[in-house]
Amino acid sequence: MNLGLFIRPCGHHIASWRHPDCQADAGENFQHYVEMAQLAERGLFDMLFSADSHTSWTVSESSIDLVHYVAWMEPWTLLSALSQHTKRIGLVCTASTTFEHPYSVARKFASLDVLTGGRCGWNVVTSGNETEALNFSAMPHLPKAERYKRAREFVDVVQALWDSWDEDAFPRNKQTGIFSDRSKMHVLNHHGEHFDVQGPLNVTRSPQGQPVIVQAGASDDGRQIAAETAEVVFTAHHVIETAREFYSDVKSRMVAYGRDPDTLKILPGLSVYVAPTREEAQAKLQTLQDLLHPKLAVALLSRRIGFDLTSYPLDEPLPQLPENVVVSSRADMIIGWSKEGPHTLGGLAKRFASSRGHFTIAGTPGEVVDQMQAWFEGGACDGFNVLPPYYNGGLRDFVDMVVPELQRRGLFRTAYEGKTLRDILGLPTPQSRYAKA
Amino acid sequence: MNLGLFIRPCGHHIASWRHPDCQADAGENFQHYVEMAQLAERGLFDMLFSADSHTSWTVSESSIDLVHYVAWMEPWTLLSALSQHTKRIGLVCTASTTFEHPYSVARKFASLDVLTGGRCGWNVVTSGNETEALNFSAMPHLPKAERYKRAREFVDVVQALWDSWDEDAFPRNKQTGIFSDRSKMHVLNHHGEHFDVQGPLNVTRSPQGQPVIVQAGASDDGRQIAAETAEVVFTAHHVIETAREFYSDVKSRMVAYGRDPDTLKILPGLSVYVAPTREEAQAKLQTLQDLLHPKLAVALLSRRIGFDLTSYPLDEPLPQLPENVVVSSRADMIIGWSKEGPHTLGGLAKRFASSRGHFTIAGTPGEVVDQMQAWFEGGACDGFNVLPPYYNGGLRDFVDMVVPELQRRGLFRTAYEGKTLRDILGLPTPQSRYAKA
Repeated sequence: MNLGLFIRPCGHHIASWRHPDCQADAGENFQHYVEMAQLAERGLFDMLFSADSHTSWTVSESSIDLVHYVAWMEPWTLLSALSQHTKRIGLVCTASTTFEHPYSVARKFASLDVLTGGRCGWNVVTSGNETEALNFSAMPHLPKAERYKRAREFVDVVQALWDSWDEDAFPRNKQTGIFSDRSKMHVLNHHGEHFDVQGPLNVTRSPQGQPVIVQAGASDDGRQIAAETAEVVFTAHHVIETAREFYSDVKSRMVAYGRDPDTLKILPGLSVYVAPTREEAQAKLQTLQDLLHPKLAVALLSRRIGFDLTSYPLDEPLPQLPENVVVSSRADMIIGWSKEGPHTLGGLAKRFASSRGHFTIAGTPGEVVDQMQAWFEGGACDGFNVLPPYYNGGLRDFVDMVVPELQRRGLFRTAYEGKTLRDILGLPTPQSRYAKA
Repeated sequence: MNLGLFIRPCGHHIASWRHPDCQADAGENFQHYVEMAQLAERGLFDMLFSADSHTSWTVSESSIDLVHYVAWMEPWTLLSALSQHTKRIGLVCTASTTFEHPYSVARKFASLDVLTGGRCGWNVVTSGNETEALNFSAMPHLPKAERYKRAREFVDVVQALWDSWDEDAFPRNKQTGIFSDRSKMHVLNHHGEHFDVQGPLNVTRSPQGQPVIVQAGASDDGRQIAAETAEVVFTAHHVIETAREFYSDVKSRMVAYGRDPDTLKILPGLSVYVAPTREEAQAKLQTLQDLLHPKLAVALLSRRIGFDLTSYPLDEPLPQLPENVVVSSRADMIIGWSKEGPHTLGGLAKRFASSRGHFTIAGTPGEVVDQMQAWFEGGACDGFNVLPPYYNGGLRDFVDMVVPELQRRGLFRTAYEGKTLRDILGLPTPQSRYAKA
């Protein structure tokens, strides 16, 4: 089983920062992240994963003062520094194909891979958020399909740049003065619809050759690009049925591209409240739910489904959503919930806020692992991306109670395998496209 | 006296990597940089400084296999990781106003400043290099004057974004659920000629408030932007006369902008070969000069003056350079040299390669410090940006022989002052533009 740790200041529950044990200034407290990373490494997690956002406006203006992730450290800077406080755990960072350039992205990920001896992965995202675009005047705000096409070309260019130099391209012969072997340098000369990039990349071939490609996104376009290019996929499912459908759909699409389904690890998000008894575990969840500001819960839901619900009454049913909103995978889930209950907007918003639509378990270590095992063995996932409700306490609970139970059942490693993130994930290390057969 | 250390794989002499004591794989050897950074901190340097380049083509195609900096770690990733192996030394990184976005630049520098407790500076550059532009299809290749105007607006936006949040903008009140005080958040709403940026920055106000602004560039436009915005300026002069002229010109331009000349530190590059005797010091220089590939020396010179000299005979005088090349400050210097000697292209190229046009001293510790002192006390500089000819040996020589002599004469600190890079440099910490008088 593969386990990612989704890092985030304070925690994944939006009331996390109000928890008595939570360090509310986590977003600017590097020592807090060091502890988090070292705890994750003690728990033998495959990787740290960081999302990214190019705006403070992650909720509507009316709730901006209630949200704890308006300001936090830029994740690339953070992960590079954290690499020096950990030895083996993978480091996966988000970089946007909308706001960055392929040459720069190829360069920084290859560099971190070199610097860490092969622990680096790239979470590829497209940015469709209007408030982010307002900070990047020069960037065209492309329609979704066009963003995905651009992303596809972006990934192709980055991966090609990573093959710029063969592994043995640098004889560095002090006697002759020949530093590089120009027959082992590959000039890309890419001229595509969205990018022109000459190359070569000014970084040596990195230990993994290709840093691991990670993606999220559940839409049809998202599934397609994952099947074509991803090696790890993060996804959100609160029930096993939709997780299974997603899993088998993406894995079967891979076959069309000649890819072995085992070379892609699908990791749904997982939110765990664990304690020696079920009552204590449920009390942990309730503590955070009680700290949840209702206005913030509705603001978060509005943002995630792309429709402003903040002016609707909390104690009435979910209003009818417009056509263009209903099609998103998150909105679809909320509409489903509104049928099974809770039936009020306030109740739905609170339920959504507790885990942002991810698989949530509150129980004893045995109960938690029972459910994780059912998903893992039931064709719903290859592991999980763990979203601790609050840091670092929620992570410590997972490492101290869930990991040992997973190990006892033989579901999880007892030591790190191999040297690189690919070794840990069980992914092959690709040859250069220029390698002779 | 302020001292910067210009970091670079292998060293600043282009034959450095061939030196018997040089780690030729320095560009991909993180441990080598850790040693470098710790040595610099032991020597109480104000800051590490890294240049940047978005291409492997730093010389013409015919010499590409002779040059050691075709591939190296991306400096931001490197400096963030190095911050964890040092405690006090400043970290100054180059970021291009041509290839990056103001929001991203503001974000990463503020983040490193937060992460390091206030040790961060930004070396602002414009990129006019054609081979870099070929890796960034989308970027317009602007004429020089336009690039500077864009740079000026870019710096304004970044500095304004750094004031997005007041120091006390985050009450983080767990009882009320109020995380931020919205009256202390400042939305920029910048709409300029080159950029539209809404803000606020999604990073808290950093310990320095404003990371230090560093610049290089000796042209009239460069001097102007330095006088308007820079707090540290790196420059290249091989004789005291031009250094003095530059120093007094830039400092007097500052007055026109209502700036105190002491709030800008001018640091010419300095290349030192030091040994207990003058003969040994000169032998150190000669060792590297003897390892210099003549073809590479001419290729480097061609690149730096922007005119291809690689097909001209080495044993004849410098050919007539075209009008548009002569105007650059570096070309001007080379033409000056060609009158005083050496008189052949090969000789000029070798002389240029030894220090790339920077002030070079080979001598005993006393002799080296005599000259440094003459520049410092003679109105030519506020300190130096040190360019060790090879790493880490050349740096170790400087730390072990030159620094103690500077200290003995009371010219240099014997311990770090204050907490931040601004404290170390002796620069004021600016108030927010939104602070009430």
